[in-house]
Amino acid sequence: MTTAALTGAARAIARCDVLATLSSLPSGIERVAYSEEHRAANALVGEWMREAGLQVRQDAAGNVCGRIEGRRDGLPALVLGSHLDTVTDAGRYDGMLGVLLAIEVAERIDTAALPFALELIGFTDEEGTRFGDALLGSRAFAGRVAADRLATTDRAGTSVAQAMTAFGLDPARIGEAARRPEELVGYLETHIEQGPHLIDADRALAVVTAIAGARRFALQVTGRAGHAGGTPYPRRRDALVAAAEIVVEIERIAIETGTIGTVGRIRAFPGGVNVVPGVCRFSLDLRGETDEARDAAFARIDAAAREVCERRGVAWSADEFYRADATICDAALVAAVEAGVRAAGDADPVRLWSRAGHDGMAVRDVTGVAMLFLRCGNDGISHHPDETVTEEDVAAALAGFEAAVLAVAEQHRP
Amino acid sequence: MTTAALTGAARAIARCDVLATLSSLPSGIERVAYSEEHRAANALVGEWMREAGLQVRQDAAGNVCGRIEGRRDGLPALVLGSHLDTVTDAGRYDGMLGVLLAIEVAERIDTAALPFALELIGFTDEEGTRFGDALLGSRAFAGRVAADRLATTDRAGTSVAQAMTAFGLDPARIGEAARRPEELVGYLETHIEQGPHLIDADRALAVVTAIAGARRFALQVTGRAGHAGGTPYPRRRDALVAAAEIVVEIERIAIETGTIGTVGRIRAFPGGVNVVPGVCRFSLDLRGETDEARDAAFARIDAAAREVCERRGVAWSADEFYRADATICDAALVAAVEAGVRAAGDADPVRLWSRAGHDGMAVRDVTGVAMLFLRCGNDGISHHPDETVTEEDVAAALAGFEAAVLAVAEQHRP
Repeated sequence: MTTAALTGAARAIARCDVLATLSSLPSGIERVAYSEEHRAANALVGEWMREAGLQVRQDAAGNVCGRIEGRRDGLPALVLGSHLDTVTDAGRYDGMLGVLLAIEVAERIDTAALPFALELIGFTDEEGTRFGDALLGSRAFAGRVAADRLATTDRAGTSVAQAMTAFGLDPARIGEAARRPEELVGYLETHIEQGPHLIDADRALAVVTAIAGARRFALQVTGRAGHAGGTPYPRRRDALVAAAEIVVEIERIAIETGTIGTVGRIRAFPGGVNVVPGVCRFSLDLRGETDEARDAAFARIDAAAREVCERRGVAWSADEFYRADATICDAALVAAVEAGVRAAGDADPVRLWSRAGHDGMAVRDVTGVAMLFLRCGNDGISHHPDETVTEEDVAAALAGFEAAVLAVAEQHRP
Repeated sequence: MTTAALTGAARAIARCDVLATLSSLPSGIERVAYSEEHRAANALVGEWMREAGLQVRQDAAGNVCGRIEGRRDGLPALVLGSHLDTVTDAGRYDGMLGVLLAIEVAERIDTAALPFALELIGFTDEEGTRFGDALLGSRAFAGRVAADRLATTDRAGTSVAQAMTAFGLDPARIGEAARRPEELVGYLETHIEQGPHLIDADRALAVVTAIAGARRFALQVTGRAGHAGGTPYPRRRDALVAAAEIVVEIERIAIETGTIGTVGRIRAFPGGVNVVPGVCRFSLDLRGETDEARDAAFARIDAAAREVCERRGVAWSADEFYRADATICDAALVAAVEAGVRAAGDADPVRLWSRAGHDGMAVRDVTGVAMLFLRCGNDGISHHPDETVTEEDVAAALAGFEAAVLAVAEQHRP
């Protein structure tokens, strides 16, 4: 680890503290898309990019973008970045740290020697806090904003299009934020892990191999309501007991298949204390390293639920209401990140799949993506004020991130 | 079965149809305490009692009461009755049929030969539909109306006391409805079974040995909320999966112990689709033939829940919010009912414990109680418009009820 990396790490952390003050909450952090805090964050981050020698602009979606040319002008760009928006009552590192470390990399690296331009990006609306749908900035970058997306509204009834207009953007021109594959070499993002795997592994860094896809289902068991007193067991068609068996099965199957299944919501109807539930509705969020693993797990869950329901004489249904396929990271970029982690002093890099979503899930539609994770403390907590990192780990991440960029450069050496 | 019993049965059923028209709902039956329908039902039933030769009055709680003297005036009374109020969208036999069959018994029996007076009662507010708490009329009969009971309000904010006043009663004098043990010989009630046991047994009648006590608990598992993506299984403290295991255990233990455990409500918190539940709240309604059986079942459920929660590193709590101890029917009165069932042609009477609550649970505080059940159709459905009986079964019930009264007379023969 160089002193420069330590200095850069300290500055990146200090800048996270500054960005944390740009919040719509009197105490706690919240910075949503097209807010005054978004405007202020873009201005500040743009200023820091300029200090690092980049040409800065805000794109048609409200992402803040910087560019510095490589060995010659007009080369395709390697893009480094993350997001600047937050959830409500957020931590100060999720997203922001990745953008600020990209600035440190741009500051430290000899860009004139690179076989590509370097572009930095601070995406807006990765979290979807304001409008309920995630990845707006990175989808615009990939030219994949769905037609109806700009009509979705926040809780005050303001649409994305109205919010963009108030922000000084023209929603009709959001397509101009789209990048073409031939302009790009790839996308690298550094992010806190948002989980405890690196704590358990006693490592600072991990190479991300994939970003989990998720499928979400509205599950329902339909039995027959009845009076708690008047309905003996052989006649019961208790929807809740069947659902309870299925909830236990979901956990068992997810553990066995290395996927993650979470039932976050459940409700029984009609809901009387002395009434056998006739209907039980519950949710399933299912994630896997690959779509195949996740879908195979769902097939097992579905089969187990059918067995439970058939045995109990109740009906079963599973309606998918959300699906995001897994993002497999680009092999060459993963190799570059792995080289970066080795250069930062870890001879046997940990490989992880990201259980949370990231901008790379949208960017992959236009160029290859890879990610570097760094350890976060407090049992890996994130989306919470207790989110934390150490300066040593950030310095390791900066060294690894810079070395990863140099490894990509090595891959593109003519 | 005599023709008279058939005729009496037909009249009792026809009178149930008439009472069904005294409803606050445009279609469907609802007749709650201290309503205009209550007033009309008391007036009509009082008129039918008078026709059967009884002296009729409305007591201080709004119960309609009739009395006919026995061998000499002023003897203690055997009380026959049930309730005249209903749940919302009720059936037409639950309660009412028992009152109307008591009138038929009074009509048929030679009361001048009885060693006790015969009293009939149509209780009010057995169901607790309006004020949320059950057995008001029969508790007043037993002199056991709790001090704060008259302050409870209906959904419109009207208290029991206000409703009584509007009905023409003086709430301050509700104590005058209380009866003294020395005035009473016992209490006999005929009621539809409200369950399918007699259908399964292919019998018209059953001798009730006990009325189930119930205990109701607010159950809670407290774990730790976490992000569905960021919380790997070994670190999860998922309150819902633990609760689901417990729901399955409740069913298993209840079946094994011959009790009835029903979980009618469940909710997980914070309730996000992608958040591991940190808290799960659910309900338990537990019934048994005896308090000992029910309490032993709860002890096993509690132990099983503790085992689940300890294994999963989550906390467990069970708060009782309702308790009604079981009513063991009076042995001599049960023998009389059994003799009645034999007299109605069933040589081997079925004995059942009532899974639902009845006025006898309150009346037992002032005199011994027993019940005669008759079969209801449609899989035993009750508290529902599909509640049904056959005229043959009602005739058997009338014959059995009359014979039971004569059997009690035999027991009291000097």
